[in-house]
Amino acid sequence: MGERTEFRRELGQQLRVDSVRASAAAGSGHPTSSMSAADLLAVLIDGRLRIDPANLDDPSADHLIFSKGHASPLYYAVLKALGVIDDAELLTFRKLGSRLEGHPTPRIPPTDVATGSLGQGLPISVGVAITGKRLDRLPYRVWCLCGDSEMAEGSMWEAFQHAGWEGLDNLTAIIDVNRLGQTRETMLGWDTDGYARRLEAFGWNAIVCDGHDVDAVEAAFADAEATEGRPSAIVARTLKGRGVKAVEDLPGKHGKPLDDPEAAIEELGGERDLTVEVARPPGGTPYRFDTSDAPMPSWELGEEVATRKAYGEALTALGTRRGDVVALDGEVSNSTYSEDFREAHEDRYFEMFIAEQQLVSAAIGMQVRGWVPFASTFAAFLSRAYDFVRMGAISQANIRLSGSHAGVSIGEDGPSQMALEDIAAFRAVHGSTVLHPSDANQTAALVEALADTPGICFLRTLRGKTPVRTPVDERVRIGGSRVVRGDDATDVAIIACGITVDEAYRAAAALEDEGVSARVLDCYSVKPIDAEAVRAAARDCGALVTVEDHWPEGGLGDAVLETLADAPDRPPVTKLAVREMPGSGSPEELLHEAGIDAEGIAAAVRAVVREGAAR
Amino acid sequence: MGERTEFRRELGQQLRVDSVRASAAAGSGHPTSSMSAADLLAVLIDGRLRIDPANLDDPSADHLIFSKGHASPLYYAVLKALGVIDDAELLTFRKLGSRLEGHPTPRIPPTDVATGSLGQGLPISVGVAITGKRLDRLPYRVWCLCGDSEMAEGSMWEAFQHAGWEGLDNLTAIIDVNRLGQTRETMLGWDTDGYARRLEAFGWNAIVCDGHDVDAVEAAFADAEATEGRPSAIVARTLKGRGVKAVEDLPGKHGKPLDDPEAAIEELGGERDLTVEVARPPGGTPYRFDTSDAPMPSWELGEEVATRKAYGEALTALGTRRGDVVALDGEVSNSTYSEDFREAHEDRYFEMFIAEQQLVSAAIGMQVRGWVPFASTFAAFLSRAYDFVRMGAISQANIRLSGSHAGVSIGEDGPSQMALEDIAAFRAVHGSTVLHPSDANQTAALVEALADTPGICFLRTLRGKTPVRTPVDERVRIGGSRVVRGDDATDVAIIACGITVDEAYRAAAALEDEGVSARVLDCYSVKPIDAEAVRAAARDCGALVTVEDHWPEGGLGDAVLETLADAPDRPPVTKLAVREMPGSGSPEELLHEAGIDAEGIAAAVRAVVREGAAR
Repeated sequence: MGERTEFRRELGQQLRVDSVRASAAAGSGHPTSSMSAADLLAVLIDGRLRIDPANLDDPSADHLIFSKGHASPLYYAVLKALGVIDDAELLTFRKLGSRLEGHPTPRIPPTDVATGSLGQGLPISVGVAITGKRLDRLPYRVWCLCGDSEMAEGSMWEAFQHAGWEGLDNLTAIIDVNRLGQTRETMLGWDTDGYARRLEAFGWNAIVCDGHDVDAVEAAFADAEATEGRPSAIVARTLKGRGVKAVEDLPGKHGKPLDDPEAAIEELGGERDLTVEVARPPGGTPYRFDTSDAPMPSWELGEEVATRKAYGEALTALGTRRGDVVALDGEVSNSTYSEDFREAHEDRYFEMFIAEQQLVSAAIGMQVRGWVPFASTFAAFLSRAYDFVRMGAISQANIRLSGSHAGVSIGEDGPSQMALEDIAAFRAVHGSTVLHPSDANQTAALVEALADTPGICFLRTLRGKTPVRTPVDERVRIGGSRVVRGDDATDVAIIACGITVDEAYRAAAALEDEGVSARVLDCYSVKPIDAEAVRAAARDCGALVTVEDHWPEGGLGDAVLETLADAPDRPPVTKLAVREMPGSGSPEELLHEAGIDAEGIAAAVRAVVREGAAR
Repeated sequence: MGERTEFRRELGQQLRVDSVRASAAAGSGHPTSSMSAADLLAVLIDGRLRIDPANLDDPSADHLIFSKGHASPLYYAVLKALGVIDDAELLTFRKLGSRLEGHPTPRIPPTDVATGSLGQGLPISVGVAITGKRLDRLPYRVWCLCGDSEMAEGSMWEAFQHAGWEGLDNLTAIIDVNRLGQTRETMLGWDTDGYARRLEAFGWNAIVCDGHDVDAVEAAFADAEATEGRPSAIVARTLKGRGVKAVEDLPGKHGKPLDDPEAAIEELGGERDLTVEVARPPGGTPYRFDTSDAPMPSWELGEEVATRKAYGEALTALGTRRGDVVALDGEVSNSTYSEDFREAHEDRYFEMFIAEQQLVSAAIGMQVRGWVPFASTFAAFLSRAYDFVRMGAISQANIRLSGSHAGVSIGEDGPSQMALEDIAAFRAVHGSTVLHPSDANQTAALVEALADTPGICFLRTLRGKTPVRTPVDERVRIGGSRVVRGDDATDVAIIACGITVDEAYRAAAALEDEGVSARVLDCYSVKPIDAEAVRAAARDCGALVTVEDHWPEGGLGDAVLETLADAPDRPPVTKLAVREMPGSGSPEELLHEAGIDAEGIAAAVRAVVREGAAR
């Protein structure tokens, strides 16, 4: 046996031992899922994975993403072997305040993203690999450890399909085929050829090997690295819990520490303290796109413009001014108007096809390397990627999602295409920003602001045209709002956003003729909401009416109520929203049916004013 | 040319003409996406699809699901040719009040489910096909028309994978490879062999054919029907807009009516009024599982039981009592405790593996045929299927989703496994029911109630044990709540659910010693919330404190605020919720860090009582 072979076997055993130790110290975790992949990682980190432990931010460094995030004990054992953490920290696994959480997060560098919801690491890896090829233009490689259970997730196949189509030869998926899921055998078991057939059909170079034969694994990695024009997958047959008889290849051993860790460590040959001589990054600096001065677009007061169209134009201008801005779309770019960006900045536009999970994941992958992605599709279809958005917040990802075709105001296409839950869903994402401009000038200003806004950002745009009411020189900001009319109103404040602002305006005008004074507040920033303006409305006016093209739950109305929650007094709040399942019809008909058009708003205001007078 | 061939060609042209006419009458729609698949449908409905137009509810009838729901003009043209609707109704397409919405919904029988969000019809078809084989045990077939653009959706591959694994030879996917998506060519274009390779690798019988050669299509259907042991896919090469030069195989013609419909109709040979002699369903009655008396489980006051465990036991008992109850799980049945059901009722348990979109879709498919599905996984991972849940509401589907491992109280696994947005997401689904019991007896009662509750139902369960506080003979109901203590309290009402009920109880006990009287209200039904009990708390007490193991947005606190929104007076409401991204730690540590344990609640109550006194 060669020296290298022997070292790698020992290193694999060390990774197992450290996985067992970390899980034992924590009293929980997934040691057996770690042990199956230990030899794969031992070979990868011994001279192939290129990172600089002293400079984890090297832009040319390789990326290692554990799509099977529950193998976190192995991941942290790898970080120790690389010299990134010490043994004492390894044993803080899963303890309060430790950087080593139950599943990897960016709290421990160089972790790019949070994993632990299966099927997400690979599509994000696709995003990083695209970034390497087409944005950074650096020769880094992306190594993604995948579990076999997660091969059932559709998002994996979105990733396989897209990577095959893009020919991402800088991406290698390492599939740990240990056969056993949480409760039973996977659909394919040890049918490694079955996986290989699927992967080849999706345009990948598939390499089947014994995942515990370190020389075979080395050959597989060499094959992967030498393969050009398509991504490679190493389909490794392994044993779950490999190396410890009490758990090896046995069902019922998932996700728990070993019963007798001392005996297991002994069986594995005891503790070791091997450190790997890490291959260094190839160097190089990221590509930068040319920029030039360009004005942000603006529109005259009274012009009729769809905010989705303003989004496209603003993003295009922003892309001219800033080379770090990139756009992605889910094959509806002529609906979201990201097509404007594509036409102007073809090199920085990414067609993700009808695969919203891959769309959001690619954006997350791009921001890993500091790019500023804007990803767009119909707002309704962003619900397809909700788990990816949720995890994006844990990944501390900075992404901007633009969802068009909000609400019943889209009209004839019917409810499948109408986003009516999107504000609720995005508000309930940690640290998120939720914007719903009512006109084109607001939209342009917010697009510009979003480029520098951290976290998960959601911009909701409209299919139909709305009149421009915001002067181009008025300050529009995240957390802001504007009083559209009735600054001195005392009877009622109508709080609206998006399509309902114009309806509210027209309702207020009609009410004025009846002697009812109504303020119209445009809360284009739903989260954070302009609490000062909402409180002022509550202070100045005898009643509040909120109106939104959204279900009643979790939208603008609830954001207003939350703002006033701890106020000892506040006027009654009437929430107007979509309360019945819409069908098809014209935008006007559907807004009317939902009671959120000018007529419905005016009727609601009359009712609350009457009630107030009766008290 | 044979008579049948000629008839089918004519029928195909009629379907095209009617697609053009319906879209022209509506002024919108997708005629070109309809025209590519017209010949496929003409052959299918002429003697192969088995339905009874006079009895659309025949349990043995075939199912036709348009996964490419935007081909609704074709679907409605088919319904006309089958004699289900007349020509006048066809021309109501997309008009207010019409049953013929922009995308198909169950408002027009025999439509099983709503489609229009791509990639959903096939996984639901898998659910219906499983139902035919393993539940109904009837020889009906499921025919699913798929678009080629939606082949990029991961959910399609979850479906292909699962159907291949199950060997669903009663399922045929008809893939309309018209090459053109909304804005450009698809990834595979006309590479029908590329699709066939993928499908074969996933265990399907793939049949490539010219989708406009009706004899070739007939042969393909015959092959599909004759194939046993695996599902079949007809990969049909077609032309988008086939038959009308102005649009045929041209980009930029997606999703809009034809510019000159009269000329197009003439080019297609004019209007026809062919009616198909429909093949009749084979007959037979659905299988019924044996039932027997069994008590619902109950627990003694003070017992410590996890509500997820109570879910498993209650569902098992319910399954004994009711033969229509079935269970599905996303390969975490030993965590959700659906394993109890599997062990007792193996024939009615469905392992959906780590594929949450297919999990929810299969449940939707089963309820199409009147079964009562309960599908379970970690609540966090139900976010993966949010678009399917959203569409489920449009499908008028009756499904019950049980999500375990709610909130930070799961402890060490960390945020990727913690559902903290689930209540917000499910509340914002039209007509949904959202339940979060705090103890085992509540859970059992709610599981029983859910079996007869329509719509999208979500039951949130806990990983850790909680003490049983609800007497087994106390009425627990959807829309109910319970006063845990402090019926006569006047200082404050603490409104809680799930894990926070016990914390609130202990806080109230501590406060009592300090002379502060606190009511604890357990709102186990979050939607619908017990408005009467919430209003009583607001009336009786000087302050309200809501406390939930969830982000602040869209959860229990917002449900309480909404209930009180239009009240002219109400006490101040303090919302306690998880406000910072949690890490790993023990359940106790994490509840404490979030300020939602007994100590945090008591501190918040003291603050509001102090503030109230200061006013």
